[in-house]
Amino acid sequence: MSSKIPVGVLGATGAVGQKFIKLLEGHPWFEVTQVAASERSAGKRYADAVSWKQNTPIPASIRDLEVRPCTPDLECRVVFSGLDASVAGLIEEDLARAGFVVLSNSKNHRLDQDVPLVIPELNHDHLALIPIQRHNRQARGYMVTNSNCSTMFLAMALGPLHKAFQVEKVFVTTMQAISGAGYPGVPSLDILGNVIPYIAGEEEKMEIETRKILGNFNGSGIDLADFPVSAQCNRVAVEDGHTESISVKLARKTTPQEIIEVLRAFSGPPQALGLPSAPAHPILVMEEPDRPQPRFDVNRFKGMTAMVGRIRPCPILDYKMTVLGHNTIRGAAGASILNAELLKAQGTLE
Amino acid sequence: MSSKIPVGVLGATGAVGQKFIKLLEGHPWFEVTQVAASERSAGKRYADAVSWKQNTPIPASIRDLEVRPCTPDLECRVVFSGLDASVAGLIEEDLARAGFVVLSNSKNHRLDQDVPLVIPELNHDHLALIPIQRHNRQARGYMVTNSNCSTMFLAMALGPLHKAFQVEKVFVTTMQAISGAGYPGVPSLDILGNVIPYIAGEEEKMEIETRKILGNFNGSGIDLADFPVSAQCNRVAVEDGHTESISVKLARKTTPQEIIEVLRAFSGPPQALGLPSAPAHPILVMEEPDRPQPRFDVNRFKGMTAMVGRIRPCPILDYKMTVLGHNTIRGAAGASILNAELLKAQGTLE
Amino acid sequence: MSSKIPVGVLGATGAVGQKFIKLLEGHPWFEVTQVAASERSAGKRYADAVSWKQNTPIPASIRDLEVRPCTPDLECRVVFSGLDASVAGLIEEDLARAGFVVLSNSKNHRLDQDVPLVIPELNHDHLALIPIQRHNRQARGYMVTNSNCSTMFLAMALGPLHKAFQVEKVFVTTMQAISGAGYPGVPSLDILGNVIPYIAGEEEKMEIETRKILGNFNGSGIDLADFPVSAQCNRVAVEDGHTESISVKLARKTTPQEIIEVLRAFSGPPQALGLPSAPAHPILVMEEPDRPQPRFDVNRFKGMTAMVGRIRPCPILDYKMTVLGHNTIRGAAGASILNAELLKAQGTLE
Amino acid sequence: MSSKIPVGVLGATGAVGQKFIKLLEGHPWFEVTQVAASERSAGKRYADAVSWKQNTPIPASIRDLEVRPCTPDLECRVVFSGLDASVAGLIEEDLARAGFVVLSNSKNHRLDQDVPLVIPELNHDHLALIPIQRHNRQARGYMVTNSNCSTMFLAMALGPLHKAFQVEKVFVTTMQAISGAGYPGVPSLDILGNVIPYIAGEEEKMEIETRKILGNFNGSGIDLADFPVSAQCNRVAVEDGHTESISVKLARKTTPQEIIEVLRAFSGPPQALGLPSAPAHPILVMEEPDRPQPRFDVNRFKGMTAMVGRIRPCPILDYKMTVLGHNTIRGAAGASILNAELLKAQGTLE
Repeated sequence: MSSKIPVGVLGATGAVGQKFIKLLEGHPWFEVTQVAASERSAGKRYADAVSWKQNTPIPASIRDLEVRPCTPDLECRVVFSGLDASVAGLIEEDLARAGFVVLSNSKNHRLDQDVPLVIPELNHDHLALIPIQRHNRQARGYMVTNSNCSTMFLAMALGPLHKAFQVEKVFVTTMQAISGAGYPGVPSLDILGNVIPYIAGEEEKMEIETRKILGNFNGSGIDLADFPVSAQCNRVAVEDGHTESISVKLARKTTPQEIIEVLRAFSGPPQALGLPSAPAHPILVMEEPDRPQPRFDVNRFKGMTAMVGRIRPCPILDYKMTVLGHNTIRGAAGASILNAELLKAQGTLE
Repeated sequence: MSSKIPVGVLGATGAVGQKFIKLLEGHPWFEVTQVAASERSAGKRYADAVSWKQNTPIPASIRDLEVRPCTPDLECRVVFSGLDASVAGLIEEDLARAGFVVLSNSKNHRLDQDVPLVIPELNHDHLALIPIQRHNRQARGYMVTNSNCSTMFLAMALGPLHKAFQVEKVFVTTMQAISGAGYPGVPSLDILGNVIPYIAGEEEKMEIETRKILGNFNGSGIDLADFPVSAQCNRVAVEDGHTESISVKLARKTTPQEIIEVLRAFSGPPQALGLPSAPAHPILVMEEPDRPQPRFDVNRFKGMTAMVGRIRPCPILDYKMTVLGHNTIRGAAGASILNAELLKAQGTLE
Repeated sequence: MSSKIPVGVLGATGAVGQKFIKLLEGHPWFEVTQVAASERSAGKRYADAVSWKQNTPIPASIRDLEVRPCTPDLECRVVFSGLDASVAGLIEEDLARAGFVVLSNSKNHRLDQDVPLVIPELNHDHLALIPIQRHNRQARGYMVTNSNCSTMFLAMALGPLHKAFQVEKVFVTTMQAISGAGYPGVPSLDILGNVIPYIAGEEEKMEIETRKILGNFNGSGIDLADFPVSAQCNRVAVEDGHTESISVKLARKTTPQEIIEVLRAFSGPPQALGLPSAPAHPILVMEEPDRPQPRFDVNRFKGMTAMVGRIRPCPILDYKMTVLGHNTIRGAAGASILNAELLKAQGTLE
Repeated sequence: MSSKIPVGVLGATGAVGQKFIKLLEGHPWFEVTQVAASERSAGKRYADAVSWKQNTPIPASIRDLEVRPCTPDLECRVVFSGLDASVAGLIEEDLARAGFVVLSNSKNHRLDQDVPLVIPELNHDHLALIPIQRHNRQARGYMVTNSNCSTMFLAMALGPLHKAFQVEKVFVTTMQAISGAGYPGVPSLDILGNVIPYIAGEEEKMEIETRKILGNFNGSGIDLADFPVSAQCNRVAVEDGHTESISVKLARKTTPQEIIEVLRAFSGPPQALGLPSAPAHPILVMEEPDRPQPRFDVNRFKGMTAMVGRIRPCPILDYKMTVLGHNTIRGAAGASILNAELLKAQGTLE
């Protein structure tokens, strides 16, 4: 019998749920034993309920699992949530109250005062919200969230810069992959040979989540980082990988070379602890003039590293750069898994 | 016999040259009678020399023309130049000196002190550089240039705003179509499902050309507009149409509604004079939350109108918006033709 | 008041319905006065009910029409049907019974013994089924159908060959555009950079509809053409235009040159009568080695012409060739309109 | 010091050459110690000479190698050739004469009477041509070729069927990936949203190479398999993976189930010998109605397996099916490597 920690996946038939299942295949610590989804799928065999859209087959251990409803009788204590925002709010709360540790990729609770929004390399200290959350909500379990997919790579690039130089202003324009919209997601007639200059709610998420992640735990809550973010979000005909054109103003003046050094030296608890999903370096700086690019770079380091390139002076703020990351791995399912690994390593998972 | 003005096309076998030929088919004032290209093509029948990439056939009147070298013995007085930058500089100068009116889409002379860089709706008064240019260069003809394709739509959107509210700062991130790179241009392996975050020289062009176009003629030259432009340029898998995410700071504070009114009211000499290629309105403001989009909008108004949408407040500067235009029509060949039409209407073409 | 014939569009908010509205804008004989759709849309203003996906705006005369249900109280006598197959069957029958002339693009009645499946250039004599249909069904109106979009171009290419040389066998492999699947249709994650080797029901339609169109009216019904068709249907990442690789065996041996001549000489009643939507030539033979191609050729002749290229010997049958046509114009809405024009010209529309 | 066999890559900066280098990284038997290319690149550091287009970085052991000319002073005895056909013919002959074992992906010698064209699972006995070739050409080394990329998957699917049921006729229509055309290869303006119904020389290769591979060694040469092949080749906007719609006539009548069993049971020397690059099964039969598809399936089994789906009756011949394979792995570099592994296992490599 497996000595791994049994885990469940909520929204297991959806795009993010599938990615959880794919990434957790062969995980050294966790084993998916429960797949849960909406009433429409509950009771079916997983392989019959899902429209599997990964480029590897459904793991053999998952194919024949019965899809369960998202209720507190799931036989595990840790769940990864890829639930749709229309239902995630209540289900995640209920499960946390009932004793589950909920690692959520959904937007619903990210901005709750007592819910950590965590990137382990950047703000693991925000996990101090957990006992506060439990107390507030009279919950035996708790929720930990990760950011929106486009926020992730902005925050990862800004984090070490903020610490070293103090960020004062940020402009970001995104070119986001279709996989970020789930499945069926974006109709092909809308995106083939096209750019859609609008993603509902995305700019608002980037402008606030970034500031929570880079904010400070003040003993009872998070003080938002004190700089404005202006985001413009576009959808492009890319399968995987969000590309972001960023311009940043820094309080302490610096050089491109120093920025490169700071980014390259960046590391955190996942690296120190050797977490299974942690990349050796959270940030890869590329010096070729035309990189990073999603087609060629997005799958490097198992999709867990943010890539930064084209670091150069900005005529208005201080520096411009291009950031790229894998939106459904480090930007979604992989982020939740890394959070769970950190909790496990800290001994707070169970 | 035709009473139209005979014109030549330089670089006639290239991507911009083909577009000149396509757009001039059936033009009420101009008739292409000369096609000129490099020595490699000279002497051949046009249909044999060209790898025609338009979605309409080669005009019957052009198919059998003999390709000429780009020398002053061309039998016309007006030439449209789609020459490659590697050769455009000297050829255009030589022809202007020899008496030709050169309407150039090439970058070489755009920033010359005595060469007008013109968008007829915005800065037709810069044509006052023509006599200065002739005198400086001892030339019987002259050169008039149009802007880089991505600059065009930034400048068209900013022009009326600058006049009404005075622009103080501009950020722009572009998502540019593959047709902007000519033919064969971008290899498909580089762009299918990809974003290339770099276009050589493009950001520099946008940052300076915009300021020349919106600058003031001071009696002997152009004073650059006094605001910084920060540009980030990306290539995306779109056939035609450059999309630009813009953020602008204005000296006079205003409302989105006033911005919309100013853009909608914008008009210039091409409209007043009813020039053949002039769109009824140079700017179309779209109010749908997700427009403009290249696939659906780029060919409207024969590709001569800039489309502006998503006008909304910016947390850092004043307003964000999305701009779209047809890069090979208003952004290239159509721009040169509109310049020629203005010159003709003003009586300065011949 | 307009002297045009008022017409209705059924399924007016769908992809084919939109194309009917676009193609009928400014039609010399017909004027859309009624837009009808499902109960979900009925009662709404058309511009509010539709997710308009054409690259020209909604015609001004249509924007404010109230969407009606698809019931016999529509105020017109002629309707074009772009209804979904799940509902088209009964609605079209009901309307025909009630006195409407139903020009249908839906598959439901195409193979009914008493319903003409017509390409006006090929089998206008099949319209002789109309009085039989009316009698059979005790209907005051009648239904006329056009073929499936991929069948259309196969049949157009084979028609003149069958008449001149008698077709004995046909292989066809299609590469079909995404617009053939309607909207939202094919999810972008399924088709970007991909080929889907399956389109439900499509091969069966091609294999039987082709034989009905090329079959003979025997006084009471249609004898199917006596040759087998083997079809393989694939979806590719093309916006508009179905490309088909065809191989054909002919009873009478011939030469490529004679095939080209037969195809070029092909013409029918639409050309003889000068119908408004008739292309000057129903077939364009292209002699370049790599044509036709959807990107460059699909919009030629307003999308009403089938393009044939690469005519060459086949090592197994007699000749191979490539055929291309616009799947939502000649392959759908334009086909129904041409049928209506033929009926009008014959005096049998009303 | 490494005990691996040192090998060279000819045309090492090209698309196929890069794939050789990528696939040979960490190979248990072979180690790339020599990279050779045209005079233009010779003398440069590999990383400076190449425009690297793989989605993993240049192997560290290769980056700093000096590019050598393709001459017989290369310090290895085995070379993999990804040379362009314009130069491959003479270079490969020269090297074989000088003692090199040349594993070639180039077309030049595939049809030579004394050169084996080998798929190890199908016709390893054709390697008996090697001593004949050496004798004919007075060569100390020899050449072994693999097929064209689109031929590969047709031959792999037909091989077991031919053995079990005897193929009598084959139709094939391909939809080929852009990576098959090398780099820069297909211009994006030619293929984005398009189908190109022509690939120079491709149909001829498929029609003859398939018959050589499935032919019989008669003691002194190869008797071509005695069935006609009719091929139609198209380029589509897919990155990697050639999809083929096939119809086949068989001498012995059979059932779909028996075909599936034969394909699934298919195996050969690479599997028996456990060659490093051999897939566990050379053919994967997929039973989903819409598979295989390049986006989801092409990278399975490290790109070395042919996938077959949609096996169904044909109204004209016997069975239709869809075949997919990775054109630059099993269809090019991986094929050469598998050939080398077979030779090594047979003790005939050195």
